[in-house]
Order: sequence, then structure tokens, then C-alpha cells
Amino acid sequence: MRIALDATGGDVGSGLLIDGAVLALNKRRDLEVVLLGPEAELKEQVSLKLGSGRMAHRLPIVHASQTVSMHESPVDAVRKKKDSTVMVGFDLVKNGKADAMVSAGNSGATLAAAIRKLGRLKGIARPGIASLFPSLKKPVMLMDIGANVDCRPQHLFQFAIMASSCSALLLKNDRPRIGLLSNGEESSKGNALVKETYGLLQKSSLNFIGNVEGRDVYNGDVDVIVCDGFVGNVSLKISEGLAEAAMKMLKEEIMKSLRAKIGYLFIRKAFDGFRTRLDYAEYGGAPLLGINGVGIICHGSSSSLAICNAIREAANMVENRVNDSIVKTLAECTGKESHA
Amino acid sequence: MRIALDATGGDVGSGLLIDGAVLALNKRRDLEVVLLGPEAELKEQVSLKLGSGRMAHRLPIVHASQTVSMHESPVDAVRKKKDSTVMVGFDLVKNGKADAMVSAGNSGATLAAAIRKLGRLKGIARPGIASLFPSLKKPVMLMDIGANVDCRPQHLFQFAIMASSCSALLLKNDRPRIGLLSNGEESSKGNALVKETYGLLQKSSLNFIGNVEGRDVYNGDVDVIVCDGFVGNVSLKISEGLAEAAMKMLKEEIMKSLRAKIGYLFIRKAFDGFRTRLDYAEYGGAPLLGINGVGIICHGSSSSLAICNAIREAANMVENRVNDSIVKTLAECTGKESHA
Repeated sequence: MRIALDATGGDVGSGLLIDGAVLALNKRRDLEVVLLGPEAELKEQVSLKLGSGRMAHRLPIVHASQTVSMHESPVDAVRKKKDSTVMVGFDLVKNGKADAMVSAGNSGATLAAAIRKLGRLKGIARPGIASLFPSLKKPVMLMDIGANVDCRPQHLFQFAIMASSCSALLLKNDRPRIGLLSNGEESSKGNALVKETYGLLQKSSLNFIGNVEGRDVYNGDVDVIVCDGFVGNVSLKISEGLAEAAMKMLKEEIMKSLRAKIGYLFIRKAFDGFRTRLDYAEYGGAPLLGINGVGIICHGSSSSLAICNAIREAANMVENRVNDSIVKTLAECTGKESHA
Repeated sequence: MRIALDATGGDVGSGLLIDGAVLALNKRRDLEVVLLGPEAELKEQVSLKLGSGRMAHRLPIVHASQTVSMHESPVDAVRKKKDSTVMVGFDLVKNGKADAMVSAGNSGATLAAAIRKLGRLKGIARPGIASLFPSLKKPVMLMDIGANVDCRPQHLFQFAIMASSCSALLLKNDRPRIGLLSNGEESSKGNALVKETYGLLQKSSLNFIGNVEGRDVYNGDVDVIVCDGFVGNVSLKISEGLAEAAMKMLKEEIMKSLRAKIGYLFIRKAFDGFRTRLDYAEYGGAPLLGINGVGIICHGSSSSLAICNAIREAANMVENRVNDSIVKTLAECTGKESHA
């Protein structure tokens, strides 16, 4: 199993990304991670960290002279930077030299490069990005979190199919419960897009449980939540913002009294556990779904553990043949099954 | 100052609503609160709580035989329940027998009743609901949180005008900073609705600071955030859901060890402070903006303190003539000022 890793993307620096790769190598003995970026620099870092031992051989380097920065336009990046880490990475996947690609860089550019190099899965109109949200029970998969801001009902319907297949195989959910994000649970609720999508989902063979509200994202009573990329992006970022603000508020309240500061010494470990549970980045990366290959996007400020988890998640997606399942479910849902 | 209070709406029961009214009467000596609901029942409750003293006289009762339940269709409710608390309440406002109306009941029905009885402010196409979100600095006003799920750019532009006037007068923000909720800060980001609204806001005399992301809601670097009612509703409910889940996760982590449980005894007060800061309901109610009068909607499970704050907020809106300011700003922004 060979996973390509964008070793320059994101806000965290190559060192931490390589640490994440090493963590993953320790977890799986059959794994190689291909580091993408400036060869000389990466070689030096790997040699400093690992010497020239056996582990270093499981971290081959493929040179890529360019990096797409976080705020660059994806369209421009794909057009102008032919030798960027993401373009080189998906080229490896295309040519069978890597099984999947992981990047913590510019997510739009990563998706654009994936589509350019690998193309779409058969029948998929709009590839998108799914993400796992923490909940009181199992993590909940929400799609799309930002790739497609203006959607038609058919796009949301396909998001449901793709995320359902992915949730079933990666999170071992038998017939994942699919909810449509709306402003109320009743079938009469929703904007025009949601109301029309409701009809498509209801008629399908998917396990559609109806509309869900924003508050249902965190209770864990649904496995997959479908929405357009604009709403999904706002949902993700408002959650990040609130989680961050909540940690700061809690700290401020504790610093107000000596008594609470003493209490904090006893309770610190519980706090760390709490912080980890709220940090969805720890759950791994966000799978690109609908591309003809496997790609995972990580948060730009991922920890090495999050990178490690994303690499393992990519390997899981390859092994579990998520894309085959998507194509099959799509065929079943659209009645174009080949009776094979 | 007379504020009408729906004494039956919501999930909390009349007792708690009356407690909220009494709290408000204690804060302001020039205040009367008109209780709306079944006369005999409310009379008994008031007499049990307050006897027949002076305070009871500041809680006059106006009979309304019907209540709109939380899941009733607003359109049906307004058409069929002519003697509901919300219809009777806005009738009082219309006839000058109350200065404003507060309800913790069905928010759609409250807005529909307000529009039916009072009509729209001159020039306003779509009245909506604004809500205060907690942040690391001052509370942030977001509009619309659910009244208008399918919007045109002109509607969002008017939400900006209305929320800006309200934020300036209620929160004492001089020239409130207005942000447009989008999936990225760059002006190129957004769905079709947002991109077109961006142009309208940029050309206007409002203090428009550009696109803001979901994470900016909680950092307090913006005073007013504009979005359509679908996105606003999801934003509000996802925040509620996350805040609730976070409190539960924190509790679960603490219960895992004796050490943490001991720490909790020292830190409990800080926790309560934290919970209060996250609980946006404590900030008061959500003003209905764009109606020709003053109305406030409270969360269906409000505390008596939240009801008290909403009543005081309603009085503030009346005294500060928020509606006059909206009409004036709208005229300035649309160039139809009468040179008065």
C-alpha cells in the first residue's frame, strides 16, 4: 500500500507532516508513504529524523517543485502550476505508482487537481468533499463541505449516495441513516433546493430518515447529513469557531478565581479528553468523493496524529473499494444497473 | 411602557413566563406587562404568586382563548386561530394598548401574526428575525435566522439595513461592522446569492467589511452578520447542538475519574459562568425586524431570566425608535429620502 503525501501543503510545515507519515508507518508494516515536495530539502529532513535505516526506505521522495498556497485560486493553480505537489501526487495515483493521495494544503486546488488528473467516477456530476463531525455517539459524515456552492437537487442526491457508501465501509454502518439538512424536521420545511431533493431521496432505495436540523449534527442519531457546499462550509466553520471560542471562554472563567485554578489541576486530563473529542481534525481527513481514485484532504493546521489518521483512512478507502460501492449504488438508484 | 407577553406559548409553562415578567417589573418601575392567555387560569396564577398587591396590578390580563402550538403551520394558525395569544397581542400593539409584544411560542406564527396585524415597515420587502450570538467580545447579531428560506439579494441587503439599525441602537455600536456570511473571505467566494448581495452592500453607505466565514461568528470582530434564513437557521441550531453536546462531553470526561470529580467541586462556579456565556438565550430574545411595530421572539425553552431580558429588550427597542432608524437608513440607502 503506497500513499502519496503532499509534504509541503498546509500551514504546519514539512516536519510535522513527515512525523504524521512516520506514525502511520509504525501502525501498518505494509505501508509506504511517498513524500511530495522539493527533493533535496525533504531528503535532508528524513535523514535528520530517521537516519538511513529501514524506516527511511519506506518514505520515498518524489520531487515536486511547486506548492499551491492556501489562498490561491484552485482553477489558476491547476492551470499554471503543473509541477505542484497536488498535480504530481494525483499523477502518481493515475499511473498506479500510488494508491491514494493525502494533502493538508489548499482543498479546492487538491480537488481540482484530482478531477483534472483522475476524472470523475462514471455517472457522478459533481465530486465533493465529505467530512466527519464529532457527535455524542459515532462520528457523523456531512457532505458537501465546500466544493459545490450552487447545487441542483440531483447533486445533493448524488452526495447522499457517495457519503452513504463511504460511511458504510469506513465506519461500518450497515445501511447508514441519511438525513437532509433543513430548517425543520417536517417534510414541508426547507428551501426550494431541499424540498426538491427530499422527493428524490424519499423515492430512492437509500435509508433516508427525512429532514434533520442543525442541532442533529451533534446528537449522533444520523450517520450521513446531506447539504450543499455553501451550507456545509458554514456548518463546519461555525462549529470550529464555536469550539475554539468555547475553550477560550472556559479558560477565562477558570482564570477568574484561585479556587477554580486549583480545580483545574485536578481536572486537566478530563479537559484534554474533552478537547480531543471536539477536535474533528483528529478523526482523520475529509475524503474527496466522486473522483476516479482516492484522495483525502486534511485541515491546514492538522496535528501529526491527524495526518497519520488521514493516511490510514486513505488506505482503508482503497482496501474497502469505496469507489466500486459508489458506482454500484449509483447504478441501483438510477435504475441503470447492468444486471451483471 | 406596556409590553404584551404571550403567557401560554413555548415549552415552559405560564408559571415561568410570569416569573420572567415579575423579574422585569422589578427592574423597571415604569413597566406594565400584559399577560395574554386564558383569563381565569392566569388570574389564579398571578394571585397565587403575588396576592393582590401593587405588583399584581402591573400584570393586567387580556383574555385569549387559543394558543398556537410549536409545530403548527404559521399560515394555518394565523388564518384559523383568530383569538390566539399572538393575534390578540399584536392587536393590542396595533391599537396602542401595548407598546410591544413578546412571545416564546411558535416563531413563524408570531411573525405571521405581526405581519397580519401590523403590516410591514414602508419599503421593506421581507421582515425577518434577528438573533444575538455569544462571542468572545460583544454579542453578534445575525439576520435572518429562519423567516425567509429562499431570498433574493435585495432581501439580504435589507436585512443588513435592519440589523445594522438595531445593533447600533440596542448594543450601542457606532456604525456597526456588517459582514456577509460566506464560504471564504475573498470577494470571489460565495454562492450566486451571496456574490450578488456583495455588490449591493459594497456600493451602499453601510459599514460593510466584506465576507465573513462561519468561524467569525464567535470571534466578535464583526457586529452584524447577514445571511438567508435557511443558512441562519442551520447556523443557530448547529451552534445550539454543539454547545449542548460539548457540555455533555465535558461532563462525561469528568465522570471518568475520581480525581476529575474532585476537581469539579472546585471548578463548578467557573463552569456555570461558562454555560451562561454560551447560552445565547440569556442575551434576550430575537427581534422581529421589518414589521410596523415591535415584537420579540424568545426560545421555546427560555429561562425566566431570558424572558425578563426579552421584555427589557422590547422596551429598549420602543424607546430607541429602532423602526424609525430602519426607515431612515432604508431611505438613505435607496436614495428615496424625502429631504425632510
